[in-house]
Amino acid sequence: MRIKEFRAILGKKRADFAVFYNSDSSKPNANMLYFSGYKGLGALIVSKKQEPFLAVPDMEFERAKKSMIKKIYSMEKKKFFESIYPIIKKNHLKTKNIAIDKNNFTLNSYRYFKKQFKNLKAKDISLDCLKLREIKTEKEIQFLKKSCSYADKILQKAIKNFKSFRTESEAGAFLEYEAKKKGLEISFNPIVASGSNGSMPHHEPSNSRIKKGFCVVDFGVKYKGYCSDMTRTIYIGKPGKNEKEIYNFLLSIQKNAINQIKNNQKCSKIYDFAAESLGKYKNNFTHGLGHGVGVEIHETPNLSLNSKDRVRNSMVFTIEPGIYFPKRFGIRIEDTVLFGNKPITLTKTAKDLIMI
Amino acid sequence: MRIKEFRAILGKKRADFAVFYNSDSSKPNANMLYFSGYKGLGALIVSKKQEPFLAVPDMEFERAKKSMIKKIYSMEKKKFFESIYPIIKKNHLKTKNIAIDKNNFTLNSYRYFKKQFKNLKAKDISLDCLKLREIKTEKEIQFLKKSCSYADKILQKAIKNFKSFRTESEAGAFLEYEAKKKGLEISFNPIVASGSNGSMPHHEPSNSRIKKGFCVVDFGVKYKGYCSDMTRTIYIGKPGKNEKEIYNFLLSIQKNAINQIKNNQKCSKIYDFAAESLGKYKNNFTHGLGHGVGVEIHETPNLSLNSKDRVRNSMVFTIEPGIYFPKRFGIRIEDTVLFGNKPITLTKTAKDLIMI
Repeated sequence: MRIKEFRAILGKKRADFAVFYNSDSSKPNANMLYFSGYKGLGALIVSKKQEPFLAVPDMEFERAKKSMIKKIYSMEKKKFFESIYPIIKKNHLKTKNIAIDKNNFTLNSYRYFKKQFKNLKAKDISLDCLKLREIKTEKEIQFLKKSCSYADKILQKAIKNFKSFRTESEAGAFLEYEAKKKGLEISFNPIVASGSNGSMPHHEPSNSRIKKGFCVVDFGVKYKGYCSDMTRTIYIGKPGKNEKEIYNFLLSIQKNAINQIKNNQKCSKIYDFAAESLGKYKNNFTHGLGHGVGVEIHETPNLSLNSKDRVRNSMVFTIEPGIYFPKRFGIRIEDTVLFGNKPITLTKTAKDLIMI
Repeated sequence: MRIKEFRAILGKKRADFAVFYNSDSSKPNANMLYFSGYKGLGALIVSKKQEPFLAVPDMEFERAKKSMIKKIYSMEKKKFFESIYPIIKKNHLKTKNIAIDKNNFTLNSYRYFKKQFKNLKAKDISLDCLKLREIKTEKEIQFLKKSCSYADKILQKAIKNFKSFRTESEAGAFLEYEAKKKGLEISFNPIVASGSNGSMPHHEPSNSRIKKGFCVVDFGVKYKGYCSDMTRTIYIGKPGKNEKEIYNFLLSIQKNAINQIKNNQKCSKIYDFAAESLGKYKNNFTHGLGHGVGVEIHETPNLSLNSKDRVRNSMVFTIEPGIYFPKRFGIRIEDTVLFGNKPITLTKTAKDLIMI
C-alpha cells in the first residue's frame, strides 16, 4: 500500500532507502506486511527510485513469490543481517542514510547491521509509518468492512450456541474454529471472561466453568491481513435490576462516545468524554478508550488520556469503554468504527444486553 | 524458573538488576514468562538480592497477581517507560549497571529508558538468558513431555478425521479447536500444506482443496507455557513406488539423525550428518535441522550449518529434516527430542507413511 507516499517520506528524511526486517516467524513485521503483503522471514527494502525488493531465506522463497513484490533475492545460508548487505550493494544503493523503524528494530539487530553498514546514519521512521497507516485507503476500508462483517457473523453464531459451552475455553475455541475453517486468521486470542475473570480486561479463556453473571467476549478476525475488533458482554442467567442498570449505563456511554466524534477532534477528548461520563465508576475504567486497527490490532490513533492524536477522515479505530470490579465482574462494549465525515460503526452486532 | 542461577549471571556481569519488558500484548516476552510466569503487559525487575517485582498497567493488575511474583506495582497512567523508573527508585536499587536482553529491546524503548536512567550502562544478557533456558529443569521436562503428549493425541485425532476435511484451513482449524477447547494454547499456527503448497516450509493453511499426494502437517501446543513441535507428512491417495521410496529415505535419515546424537556433540555436526545423508537431495533441504523448544517455539540450541551450540543433558530440541521440490511437493518429518544421556523422542506418533 501507498509506496508513493512512503517515498515522499524518504525524501523528507533525506534517506536513500528504508529497510524493514522480520527474523521471528511468530510475529510478522507490520510495515513489511503493509508495503509488500509479505509476512514471512526476511527483509524488505524500499528505495526512493527503484522497485522495492525482498531478501528472504531459501525456505521462504516460494512463499515470497506470492507477495506483491516482484524482485526477490535469496539470503543464502549466512547469518541474517550479513546476507542483506550484499543484496543492497548489488542494487547500487547508497548505504549511508538509511530509514528504519526504531519501534521494531532491536538493539542487537542494529549492532549486527552497523557492522555491515559503515558510517550508517539511521533515521527513525516509526512514527511516519504509523501516521501513514492511520489513514486507510479505499481498498483497506473495504477489507476492514469485510473483516468486521465476518467477526459479526462468527460472534453471533457463538452467542446463539453459548448454552452449549461448558467452559470459557470451549467458547474461545468455537470462535477461533469458525474463523479458521473459513481460512481467516484471528486478530488476537479471543477473550472469554465470565464472572470474576471479567474484571481482567486481558483474561485468557480458562478451563473454568462459565459462571452465572456477566461474561465478556472480545473477538476479531483478519481479512486479507486487516483486523476487526469487537466486544459484547452477555449475561448468563437473569440479571438483577442493578446489573441491568449498570450495563445500560455503560452502553449509553459507548454509543454517545461514538456519536460525538468529529473531524479534527483530539482523541484525548473522546477518552475524557467517556471517562467523565462514567462518574463514580471512572476509576473502574482501567484502560484506554480505543485504538486504531489495520494490519495490526493495536495501531494509532490512540484514544487515551495523554494521546496527542486527532481524528481524521478514513481513520478506523475501536471505541471500548469498560467497567471492572476486581474479584467481582467486568463489562466492556466495543465496536470498530470508521470515521468518514461522520462516525460509522463497522461492527453491527446488537448491543442490548443478551441473556443466555 | 532458576532465579538463583540468574542472579549468579547478574553478579558475573556486575549488573545490579535486570529489567525485562513487554509493551505488546500480542507476543509475551519469553524471559519475563520464564522467570515470572507472567505474560501480560509490564516490566519485570530481577535484582541480585531483593525479591523480583512486576510493574504493570492497572488493567493487568488482577492478572499479574496470578503469576509467581508476589510484589506487584501499578504503573499508573503515565507513559510505559516513565512509570518504571520511579518504581525502581522506590526499591532503592542502583540505576547505573543494568542488565537487559538486547534481542528483545527496541531502539526506541532504549531511547525512552535512557532518558530516565542517566549514566546508564546496559549489559547485554540475551545470550546468557538463552543459555540458561537451554537446560531444562525437571519441572520443565515434565511440562514438555505433557505438551508433546497432548500434541500427539490431537494430531492423531486429526489424522483419523482427515478424510472429512475439504480444505487445508479446515484441517488447521480442527487441530487448533481440539487444543483450544482443552484450554491449551497452540505453539504456532498449524501448517497444513498439501500438493505444491508442501514445498513452502512455512505455508499457511489456505482455502484451497486438499490435493492428492503428500500433505505436510506441522503442529504443536503449549502446556503451562511450554511448547511442543512435530510434523507428519501423510499421503492423500495411493503413493507411487518413487514417492514411497523418497519418504522412507527421509524417514531413515530423521531416525538416524536422532539416534546418533551424543553428549557434547556439536549441533552443526548433527545438521551435517542429515544434510550429507540426503545426498543428491541436499539442496532440496532448505532450512535448519532443528531448534530448541521451551517457553518459545524457537530457542537455542540451533541445529544448523553454522551453529556453535553443543548438545548437553536436559536440552530439548526438534529434529526435522525435509525435502522440498518447488511447485511440486514437500516432505518433512519432525519430532521433539529430549537429550537425557541419550536421545529420547517425546513426540510418539507413528512415522510410517500414512495413506488417507
